[in-house]
Amino acid sequence: MSEWFEERYRDRIGLSLKTTEKLFSKQSSFQKIDVYDTIAYGRLMTLDGMVMCTEKDEFVYHEMITHVAALSHPEPHSILVIGGGDGGTIRELVKHGDIARIDLCEIDGDVIQVSKDYFPTLNTAFDHPKVNVHVDDGIAFIARAQPKSYQIVIIDSSEPIGPGEGLFTEAFYTDVKRVLTDNGIMIAQTEAPFVCGDMIGRIYSHLRPVFAQVKMFTAPIPTYPSGYWSWAFCSKQQTDFLQKSAETVSKTTSYYNEAIHQAAFALPNFVKALIEV
Amino acid sequence: MSEWFEERYRDRIGLSLKTTEKLFSKQSSFQKIDVYDTIAYGRLMTLDGMVMCTEKDEFVYHEMITHVAALSHPEPHSILVIGGGDGGTIRELVKHGDIARIDLCEIDGDVIQVSKDYFPTLNTAFDHPKVNVHVDDGIAFIARAQPKSYQIVIIDSSEPIGPGEGLFTEAFYTDVKRVLTDNGIMIAQTEAPFVCGDMIGRIYSHLRPVFAQVKMFTAPIPTYPSGYWSWAFCSKQQTDFLQKSAETVSKTTSYYNEAIHQAAFALPNFVKALIEV
Repeated sequence: MSEWFEERYRDRIGLSLKTTEKLFSKQSSFQKIDVYDTIAYGRLMTLDGMVMCTEKDEFVYHEMITHVAALSHPEPHSILVIGGGDGGTIRELVKHGDIARIDLCEIDGDVIQVSKDYFPTLNTAFDHPKVNVHVDDGIAFIARAQPKSYQIVIIDSSEPIGPGEGLFTEAFYTDVKRVLTDNGIMIAQTEAPFVCGDMIGRIYSHLRPVFAQVKMFTAPIPTYPSGYWSWAFCSKQQTDFLQKSAETVSKTTSYYNEAIHQAAFALPNFVKALIEV
Repeated sequence: MSEWFEERYRDRIGLSLKTTEKLFSKQSSFQKIDVYDTIAYGRLMTLDGMVMCTEKDEFVYHEMITHVAALSHPEPHSILVIGGGDGGTIRELVKHGDIARIDLCEIDGDVIQVSKDYFPTLNTAFDHPKVNVHVDDGIAFIARAQPKSYQIVIIDSSEPIGPGEGLFTEAFYTDVKRVLTDNGIMIAQTEAPFVCGDMIGRIYSHLRPVFAQVKMFTAPIPTYPSGYWSWAFCSKQQTDFLQKSAETVSKTTSYYNEAIHQAAFALPNFVKALIEV
């Protein structure tokens, strides 16, 4: 029996996806997790009724949150991922031969289990020898981490309202900076320019005092609010983008390639105005 | 009283916009035209229940369908727009001092009237001295046009199902080529890569035999299906993109600028595969 999954954002815009089956539903310690099969985008995971990922468009998000940083750092030996419990981010990271260690810190172990049970195209790296999975609070995990212990930290969080709120503060960014090496890079998802410009302005006002370099890059993601998403590229020093060849990894990607890497940093006028570039 | 406008696309994905008022509804000779006020995107015009434009995101579509071509042609004296009855395309074109004449050929005069009555931010150029409005069938208009009479032809059409179907055929493109000058450019909207890849493959297979150069460029448009749109850039000769400075026009735009102009031609791997680049 077909039904429609509906997500309403800020009580003003909505996304609907026709489903063929509801496969799973559980209230975890942190949030309600649901899994559906949809006609347009394959399998769908939602958290508290909001799209976390779909099988058919997650590639854009996960390729962009990983390869832009991995190919912009000369020696990304150790990586920390905060969030990312669906597994897509670590799936992309393990493609890079120069990455030796990946710590994944997801607060909700049930999200990881749902990926293992229902998302075969996302869950391929949880048992990879480079990957260490920690079910823990990201803020506490970083607070305990040694200074200068990661070349790249990726903040693969939910939105800055509710459980993810603490991952968007200047205090948190300052602690991320502490655990980054001198030439370290932080990538953070920074929401949807068309529909939460106010929020984006605040996020970047918290990033700029902390990092020497703060840039934004963007990509289309159909099942996220407004279909257009942004990430911050932050570094402790001025950094050249794309320091290594994207050729090998681009053979494995559906969205990312070298031209896209460069183009993603070209910002529309209205986006530049939001973050005062 | 608030209600939700809902558009369902191919019975698998949907967009919802919370409305504050329905302002207009009419069955024209060609389609049903409705106008609403929405909270997220301002005023909305729909044709047969599908979003044609909203006040708050139309700028992306209209800036990209015009300035990319206008700044890639050395002397765009005469321009023909097929469709474009909401007025947004001609509003952008009249910004270019080197454009002397714009013919707008819209099949449905009621669309133009609705723009004049309800869309003050779109309807500003209908009475511009450079603009000549023709309420006519685009295929017939081009069939009557003189050879080599336009430097740029812009196909600002609805989708290739229903009334717009004839605007996506090889026969039509061949007639467009006939009315273009030797260094002429055709721009056509070519649908949504995430959700109608099959259709896009067919469109480009009709374009390639006709034009010496066929490129695609893309941009995010929140209220169109999947939020990510494409256009074809076609020319009778090999052409350099961006032959003139984008500086002046970029002071008037919200999406377009020189970096965006270049970046829009960087295509994701899955899009390149659709059109066999």
